[in-house]
Amino acid sequence: MDYTTWDDAGVFLYGRGEALVQTVDFFTPIVDDPYDYGQIAAANSLSDIYAMGARPLTAMALLCFPDATLPPEVMREILRGGQDKMTEAGVSIVGGHTVRDAELKFGYSVTGVAERRRLLTNAGARAGDRLLLTKPLGTGILSTALKHGRLEPALVRKLTRQMTTLNRRAAEEAVEFGARAATDVTGFGLLGHASQMADASGTSFRLSPARTWFLPRVLELAKAGEIAGGLSKNREFFADAVDEGEIHEPMRLALYDPQTSGGLLLSVPARRVVAMDAALKRRRVWVMEVGEVIPRGAKSIQLR
Amino acid sequence: MDYTTWDDAGVFLYGRGEALVQTVDFFTPIVDDPYDYGQIAAANSLSDIYAMGARPLTAMALLCFPDATLPPEVMREILRGGQDKMTEAGVSIVGGHTVRDAELKFGYSVTGVAERRRLLTNAGARAGDRLLLTKPLGTGILSTALKHGRLEPALVRKLTRQMTTLNRRAAEEAVEFGARAATDVTGFGLLGHASQMADASGTSFRLSPARTWFLPRVLELAKAGEIAGGLSKNREFFADAVDEGEIHEPMRLALYDPQTSGGLLLSVPARRVVAMDAALKRRRVWVMEVGEVIPRGAKSIQLR
Repeated sequence: MDYTTWDDAGVFLYGRGEALVQTVDFFTPIVDDPYDYGQIAAANSLSDIYAMGARPLTAMALLCFPDATLPPEVMREILRGGQDKMTEAGVSIVGGHTVRDAELKFGYSVTGVAERRRLLTNAGARAGDRLLLTKPLGTGILSTALKHGRLEPALVRKLTRQMTTLNRRAAEEAVEFGARAATDVTGFGLLGHASQMADASGTSFRLSPARTWFLPRVLELAKAGEIAGGLSKNREFFADAVDEGEIHEPMRLALYDPQTSGGLLLSVPARRVVAMDAALKRRRVWVMEVGEVIPRGAKSIQLR
Repeated sequence: MDYTTWDDAGVFLYGRGEALVQTVDFFTPIVDDPYDYGQIAAANSLSDIYAMGARPLTAMALLCFPDATLPPEVMREILRGGQDKMTEAGVSIVGGHTVRDAELKFGYSVTGVAERRRLLTNAGARAGDRLLLTKPLGTGILSTALKHGRLEPALVRKLTRQMTTLNRRAAEEAVEFGARAATDVTGFGLLGHASQMADASGTSFRLSPARTWFLPRVLELAKAGEIAGGLSKNREFFADAVDEGEIHEPMRLALYDPQTSGGLLLSVPARRVVAMDAALKRRRVWVMEVGEVIPRGAKSIQLR
């Protein structure tokens, strides 16, 4: 398991009206296929850059490789998957570093640029905004079930496809339609990242969870106990910030599920939501309205 | 042991006449003190940026930490050492990533900028140039002896001080005095990096090794067999490019010694060498003239 010490991409003001936006992430394999793993690592690393409304420019690969136990083809496939995804994103790989290690880990350090005045942060949400989510939830629960051999091949493919999907189009439309705040949903789960965004914005979020927010079988597998350690830690850490209301237990759990290469959570002015939703759907982005921003209350998040 | 798959910092042309220069490096501890280890990791990561004549701006920390076996104070001291060194270099730490791991590893991803036309590469050396080295050699041999408990405290301090010293002043003078080519001496040892620079420049280098190039006791410890695995690999890999001449064995070995946070190897127009040497000494940079650039011969490197 990996854990993040700093959560957001770093911003460094540079030149005239520009900002460098930078992030680094690497983790152990989450799927069996090395090419897919490389693609997921790339999409996941880029996600922090997209969440700031920035355009990624360069990346450096970080690889910890057990060359005593894995053949060089595995290394090549991981790097090829990452390279293909970076090419799709228009990113130049400018270097990297490999160390021999007992445990396989892979990821990227990524640099992007944005106009300062168009940077998306997690601090701009205003009461009255609507909240949009751009990928369904449950990658942690499905990955845990996959490790236990409890996931059918079709669902493994769906899970993989979701995690290799770039947040690029979602980010481009967020900037285009003037989203006021954004974050990407990753290790802290929807409720963790949503409560951080609510706090940073000095607001609360009212969310109305539904089965349709989740990937197939996620609630059933959560009920069956297919949950990773990260989920329980997220709940322990963030539960105080959440008014959990009357949500039934499997769904409540699944809202804390740590995501790999999750979607964006966007705070959008109400008058622009319909047009933005339509624009995202035109570009084949999964999108769901998940709630609204309300004046700051006792808790960061209200579930109802 | 770690090995580098891409050797130089990556360059990405950006904006008007500027270039982003980027590098990433992380490695297992080379000294016992966690604060010193953090400083060395920072100085070592910055070195690739300085070797290109660039100014480092931002860094992200990469930490693999065995929290089951090491207390959190160790993590804090490593990060504090790195932070202090980055502050000395004028670099902002904009983020980072930590993973739980069986084996401690630490380093940085670093971004710098340079004017394109002032970028130093390893491809600009011309016959007639003189070659300057800005730190003495032997950190690999001394580190190996340290691991075996064969290094006295005063020499441990000297070794540590050398590895925590930034190549900043050396790089600033190299740009100021119009060095034609530069590289930093790291994992491939002096002969590895020198042969790559000679090849990239379409020249050969004639080097005249002397005891004064080395840290104290390095030749004695090389003779006593205190050599890391990386040294033998370097010799295996680069010996074909080197006319080893009549150099006696311990010194020959030590010229292949992999360096951590080594100095710069600079190719300098002959007419500027005296002034540059004096400027470096004024700024308290260790500097040694180690040879000259000659027309391309049968071997990349001639020792004599």
